[in-house]
Amino acid sequence: MTTHRIALIPGDGIGQEVTPAACAILDTVGKRHGYELTYDTFDWSCARYRNVGAMMPGDGLDQIRHHDAIFLGAVGDPAVPDHVSLWGLLIPIRRQFQQYVNLRPIRVFDGVPSPVRAATSEVDFVVVRENVEGEYSEIGGRMNRGFPSEMAVQEAVFTRAGVTRIVDYAFTLAQGRRQHVTSATKSNGIVHTMPFWDEVVAERAGGFPDIAWTQEHIDALCAKVVLDPARFDVFVASNLFGDILSDLAAAVAGSIGMAPAANLNPERDFPSMFEPVHGSAPDIAGQGVANPVGAVWTGAMMLRHLGHTEAADEIEQAIASVFAKTNLRTRDLGGTATTAQFVDALLDILP
Amino acid sequence: MTTHRIALIPGDGIGQEVTPAACAILDTVGKRHGYELTYDTFDWSCARYRNVGAMMPGDGLDQIRHHDAIFLGAVGDPAVPDHVSLWGLLIPIRRQFQQYVNLRPIRVFDGVPSPVRAATSEVDFVVVRENVEGEYSEIGGRMNRGFPSEMAVQEAVFTRAGVTRIVDYAFTLAQGRRQHVTSATKSNGIVHTMPFWDEVVAERAGGFPDIAWTQEHIDALCAKVVLDPARFDVFVASNLFGDILSDLAAAVAGSIGMAPAANLNPERDFPSMFEPVHGSAPDIAGQGVANPVGAVWTGAMMLRHLGHTEAADEIEQAIASVFAKTNLRTRDLGGTATTAQFVDALLDILP
Ligand SMILES: CC(C)[C@H](C(=O)O)[C@@H](O)C(=O)O
Ligand SMILES: CC(C)[C@H](C(=O)O)[C@@H](O)C(=O)O
Repeated sequence: MTTHRIALIPGDGIGQEVTPAACAILDTVGKRHGYELTYDTFDWSCARYRNVGAMMPGDGLDQIRHHDAIFLGAVGDPAVPDHVSLWGLLIPIRRQFQQYVNLRPIRVFDGVPSPVRAATSEVDFVVVRENVEGEYSEIGGRMNRGFPSEMAVQEAVFTRAGVTRIVDYAFTLAQGRRQHVTSATKSNGIVHTMPFWDEVVAERAGGFPDIAWTQEHIDALCAKVVLDPARFDVFVASNLFGDILSDLAAAVAGSIGMAPAANLNPERDFPSMFEPVHGSAPDIAGQGVANPVGAVWTGAMMLRHLGHTEAADEIEQAIASVFAKTNLRTRDLGGTATTAQFVDALLDILP
Repeated sequence: MTTHRIALIPGDGIGQEVTPAACAILDTVGKRHGYELTYDTFDWSCARYRNVGAMMPGDGLDQIRHHDAIFLGAVGDPAVPDHVSLWGLLIPIRRQFQQYVNLRPIRVFDGVPSPVRAATSEVDFVVVRENVEGEYSEIGGRMNRGFPSEMAVQEAVFTRAGVTRIVDYAFTLAQGRRQHVTSATKSNGIVHTMPFWDEVVAERAGGFPDIAWTQEHIDALCAKVVLDPARFDVFVASNLFGDILSDLAAAVAGSIGMAPAANLNPERDFPSMFEPVHGSAPDIAGQGVANPVGAVWTGAMMLRHLGHTEAADEIEQAIASVFAKTNLRTRDLGGTATTAQFVDALLDILP
């Protein structure tokens, strides 16, 4: 029996509902696969901020630095500004633990209605998003506040080290998939950073002669994701473009409630963080109707990272089976199933 | 008879085919509406660059500065780098003539198949894109080329003057439409420039109490354009976000070959430029099969700018009628109609 210590941060809203749902499944599957997860639960959240004035304690990062992984539900609250909720928790974890890969797989499951006609169950791609530099930078500011001459600037920063490692990650991933990489760019409009991105992609691609690759401007790429989603295998994209592509792709897959994500530190110098793409969804929080698939699938990605590939495969297979074999659909998919009913169906179907 | 002097730049590829098609229609309609267009044709293009080493002459902007409008087909050639073709022609025209509004209307015509299930003929919105500042800036650069420490930076620049005028334009436009504005932001990730954008939007919105408005992060917004396109009326967006939204929306409308665009200098200190969203499409150039709708509709926008509202309405109505009443579809829409056949159908249907 291998034991893994997990830092569990349920967070706000439906985060409180989908993390226990996911943990129930991870634990059940663990019994057959010889692992046990022990959870240290942290109340870091907007709720905490409203009580004590901080999303996490001052030494928060030190408290979770030695865990094997971080499992996070969702953070956000309409009454708490984003710069507090995100830049006080999510972004510092991503950056201080050098989780420079944000991995977002997309599949269209048989039985799940897609808003896009061309989206069949052949759609199976993954967005490899750079997660610690690029357009989301701390560098910039404002001057002449409130005056006609006021302006704001923000510096996008791309380093050779940063672009190289994300590109290498994407191309290596493609080797184990369908050997195709699509790089998102906008070098025709953004003329300093994006041509640099393109150059590094082209250079690194030279080291992967078995991988076919193309580059597309982000505007045209968004159009193609809607017109012909099945053509893609692995995307590699900057922080901003990866964010846009993965939300769009989650919509194509039927609901943002199903999209999983991993924030990976591939070198394992620090723990990686696993957090579904969806937010805290205050409008449906507390009703037990959230779609648990995003969190469950995210949990499967955590198992994969911890070395339990077969357990992860089993869970992903179970998700596909519930959609293919039952009519259970949560509200985001137009159904009436509860979170608990969906989880029970997963537990029933798991071997 | 009013006469308007048009600077005509057919450009490259299908630009050479769709501009004459559009001009034929504008001229015919003019006979009934009491205007005449006189064209000065300029060979500015990648073809020119390959012959003489420049997209346009050194005094190019001066040659067209006093025209009533600029009508441009498309520029681009796979053998000519973007920084030459775009930053040597398109971008200087946009900037030097302070065409700070890029206006991109989207409609889903009855009879045109959309890749998106929810896209019905109720979809009718317009993207108001900031066109001269923001993420597309000349400011930035690279250091330590080729070394491990290499980096590239690019400064996004937003001024109070620049954001104010585009926001005012969008809100004023919404007054004559369905009184709704959606502002595209990403202030949760891009923490200097986008919160500034949000603040200016909120301030200016105060002056338009009759307009309902919301703001959405660009990632979620792209998802919503696919999930529920009919809910939108007027978008206001930065240079980059407007570019992304309008390409995505053009795909939702069925084909990028149908999307029109106007680069407007609302103060009329300089000529405005009218150019369809599509590119030069070298793969189909010279075959007479390009969709002329993007250019024809763009021409209608030019007429509207020149004061010929009824003529513009008539042309837009004719486009809708050809789709509703005939089976003529160009190749981009899965049909076999030629450019000429489609133009003939438009001429037949025009009063
Ligand atoms: C060609 C390119 C610079 C341009 C842009 O992004 O502005 C194009 O995509 C457009 O939308 O007109
Ligand atoms: C919350 C926000 C900062 C975040 C991002 O853009 O990174 C979110 O959209 C995501 O994709 O995880």
